Amino acid sequence: MKPKHASSLRIAFIVLFATLFAVESFGQRTTPAAATDLYSPKLLSELKQLRDAALASDYAYVQLAHLCNNIGPRLSGSPQAQHAAQYVAGEMRRLGLNVELEKVMVPHWVRGIETGELVRFAGQAPGTTQKVVLTALGGSVATPGDGITADLVVVDSFDQLQALGREKVAGKIVLFNVRFDKQMAAQGLALNAYGQAVVYRGAGAIAAGKLGAAAALVRSVGGADYRLPHTGALGYAEDSPKIPAAAVSSEDADTIAYLTSQGPVRMHLTLTPRTLPDIESYNVVADIKGSEHPEQIIIVSGHLDSWDLGTGAIDDGAGVVVAMQTAQLIKRLGLKPKRTIRVIAWMNEENGLKGGRAYGEKHQNESENHIAAIESDLGAGHPAGFSAHANDRGIEILRPISEVLQSIGAGVVRPSDNSEGADVSPLDALGVPTLAPIQDNRTYFNYHHTAADTLDKVVPRELAENAAVMAVVAYAIANVPERLPRNTRAASPQR
Amino acid sequence: MKPKHASSLRIAFIVLFATLFAVESFGQRTTPAAATDLYSPKLLSELKQLRDAALASDYAYVQLAHLCNNIGPRLSGSPQAQHAAQYVAGEMRRLGLNVELEKVMVPHWVRGIETGELVRFAGQAPGTTQKVVLTALGGSVATPGDGITADLVVVDSFDQLQALGREKVAGKIVLFNVRFDKQMAAQGLALNAYGQAVVYRGAGAIAAGKLGAAAALVRSVGGADYRLPHTGALGYAEDSPKIPAAAVSSEDADTIAYLTSQGPVRMHLTLTPRTLPDIESYNVVADIKGSEHPEQIIIVSGHLDSWDLGTGAIDDGAGVVVAMQTAQLIKRLGLKPKRTIRVIAWMNEENGLKGGRAYGEKHQNESENHIAAIESDLGAGHPAGFSAHANDRGIEILRPISEVLQSIGAGVVRPSDNSEGADVSPLDALGVPTLAPIQDNRTYFNYHHTAADTLDKVVPRELAENAAVMAVVAYAIANVPERLPRNTRAASPQR
Repeated sequence: MKPKHASSLRIAFIVLFATLFAVESFGQRTTPAAATDLYSPKLLSELKQLRDAALASDYAYVQLAHLCNNIGPRLSGSPQAQHAAQYVAGEMRRLGLNVELEKVMVPHWVRGIETGELVRFAGQAPGTTQKVVLTALGGSVATPGDGITADLVVVDSFDQLQALGREKVAGKIVLFNVRFDKQMAAQGLALNAYGQAVVYRGAGAIAAGKLGAAAALVRSVGGADYRLPHTGALGYAEDSPKIPAAAVSSEDADTIAYLTSQGPVRMHLTLTPRTLPDIESYNVVADIKGSEHPEQIIIVSGHLDSWDLGTGAIDDGAGVVVAMQTAQLIKRLGLKPKRTIRVIAWMNEENGLKGGRAYGEKHQNESENHIAAIESDLGAGHPAGFSAHANDRGIEILRPISEVLQSIGAGVVRPSDNSEGADVSPLDALGVPTLAPIQDNRTYFNYHHTAADTLDKVVPRELAENAAVMAVVAYAIANVPERLPRNTRAASPQR
Repeated sequence: MKPKHASSLRIAFIVLFATLFAVESFGQRTTPAAATDLYSPKLLSELKQLRDAALASDYAYVQLAHLCNNIGPRLSGSPQAQHAAQYVAGEMRRLGLNVELEKVMVPHWVRGIETGELVRFAGQAPGTTQKVVLTALGGSVATPGDGITADLVVVDSFDQLQALGREKVAGKIVLFNVRFDKQMAAQGLALNAYGQAVVYRGAGAIAAGKLGAAAALVRSVGGADYRLPHTGALGYAEDSPKIPAAAVSSEDADTIAYLTSQGPVRMHLTLTPRTLPDIESYNVVADIKGSEHPEQIIIVSGHLDSWDLGTGAIDDGAGVVVAMQTAQLIKRLGLKPKRTIRVIAWMNEENGLKGGRAYGEKHQNESENHIAAIESDLGAGHPAGFSAHANDRGIEILRPISEVLQSIGAGVVRPSDNSEGADVSPLDALGVPTLAPIQDNRTYFNYHHTAADTLDKVVPRELAENAAVMAVVAYAIANVPERLPRNTRAASPQR
């Protein structure tokens, strides 16, 4: 036993430190702990164990192979998506996690026949047509079963469409022929290149429909030059007729532009997708309860749904399996996170974001206890590190993780101004810090939303590096003594 | 008038020189002229004019755009192929050439429906199938209209198939899963990589059919990793049942191999191509008559037919248009070849070689007067120079051309032991030297025989470089005083 005065002194110190911590946790920046002090030797050792075990494991890759090859494409509402949710839930239960299938009503859109032919154009061989390789945009309405036939109008911007006006657009098939900037993507700005072009996929049918167009085509938003169309979600608006819409391959867009420059080009287009009633589906939510703060949650996640053309390896089976592996590693190494690590396989990121939204609504009142939400949704290329939408103190707390990840070339800690990941954006809007690995995504948009998004596009070593990043970041946030502060306006001045 | 003795002296000199030239032209190697002496300043000047004019012209590219975009795929027997022959003939007539459409009977094979699904495999979601992206091999027989359903057997060699034997192969669908070696292709050995793998496309159906297989699949022979199947001709044999055959994409071959390693995999396969009666088609043969030796012919050529999936830009519209441009440049510059330059657009290289064979037979008796046959059929990548199946003296005669082409990075003169170009191989077998540009073909087999063989794969500058090589080489051979010697055994010792 210790003498009494020593005990009193200890209590005084505890009060003093508790006060200091409390002040700190309210965001008063007067005396924050040095961030490196938050990482005990034990914690650093555990983080390195996680890193090394991730690199030595094929768990994520084996899971990804199962999702892609045994289950296949996982479009929301499809039997494969439903089965995949059950599969991931079963796998998480097998690892000993507490699993909930949180219900989400999702769109149920089913691709049909999709064909395109140029039936009249300059210089054609008598009795022939030119095939147009295309694929319906997700959510598109159908043409009549025997298709539509109309002249083509090619534009390279919304402004050009407006300038043509209803007189020249009504009854026509409009092609938005805006190139995906492959140079920009190759320079590491793939998301910027995507953003520039994807607006036409998203809003093309609305703009063309308003002017009375019969259908809208968009040059594929992506870098493939293998006659491969890129699908993706479109938007419709209340004040514009819903018209059928499809993506054509970059080659076919070039051919159409060439032929229309020589004279009228007439096209026959058939799209027979069906929009079925919304269907009940699930976010898979699986917890490793925290040993000290079980109510405080760090989410690791990817989205389980994919488009229907490929098997969703890079978008986003890879994200799901690195989240799964975070749990698998913690369990296998017998580690005890102090806060709860929650694996989520989101449903319906691609065509509705119903999973992310439903979670945000359901857990709105617990948002204070959501410490961070990590989502991987840009493939499985080598990660340079991770980005974080967190305030300055948050970034300070995260920065020492760099020491652990630097040895695998993943030492970058990049502050971000925006939500990292679509599914976690409803949480981000509630002030929850969001994070993501920084993948090398220079070739990501070559395969994105195409039939070629398949297992072979993922390099096992790089997938393991992503698993290492997610596991290390999540476990660090779960175990540092200071919680990651919320992104409130007060706490998060604009950078 | 001149005095009589002077006239006699002149006759004596003529006899002397004629004798010297005759000795040389019979290939007596005692006193060959130094090869550089064969290139007069005027000839060198004309060759440089041709080179520079080719680089400054868009003629070949404009013609290629027309063949690909206005006419489209040109499979033998198709309306497009017939129309293309008429188009090229018309264009050559427009340039002032003497044009013959030499009749050729060609196969008339028409692609039908082609679908594949894996209907039973380990871990599948209830009620679902996995799509297999495939395309019928050219010449394949059909399955019944509602397809066949059978278990898959995967082999990686003919030996492995034989080892399995009839018991394990009969009634099954056999997949020859032999990878196209992309590393080898990237190192500049694309033809070797192709040769290694293409034997399974050529002979797979025969080998599998002999053991009672229901159908044969071959992993696509080519480097695309964009879920893109590569078609191409197959072979059947008298002593083996004709079974349906298709190429699957590399991704689907991987998936099938993965799933068969886990248990039985059952596939439903539907192929409905039709083989119609042979149809009359044409080699387009267009001459610029030689001013001194009109009977002596130098062929410049490519093949006009293509596969039906793409628009035949690299295989082999590019070859046709650089041959066309050779004529166009000679005409535009007002040059006078001393020997005849003959442009040939061959028909049916892809699935029969009927054009090349018919020409060889028809012109067999004139083969002595075929001085050389140049064919471009490896795309339109930057040419490093040209290769020639010629004897040692032939190579000597050709070597000074290097001086003219070096400035555009095309100075290599590479002796070859084999025919350069399939269509000219019947001529090669008759002793006619054959030549070809040496294209950079490292990415050629990524697009070869796929839907992605389209105009955008051709870089205009590189196409112009190829036109320069073909025009310069052809005009040089047409105008050097010494004819290129024939490849007889006596004259062409094995290198």
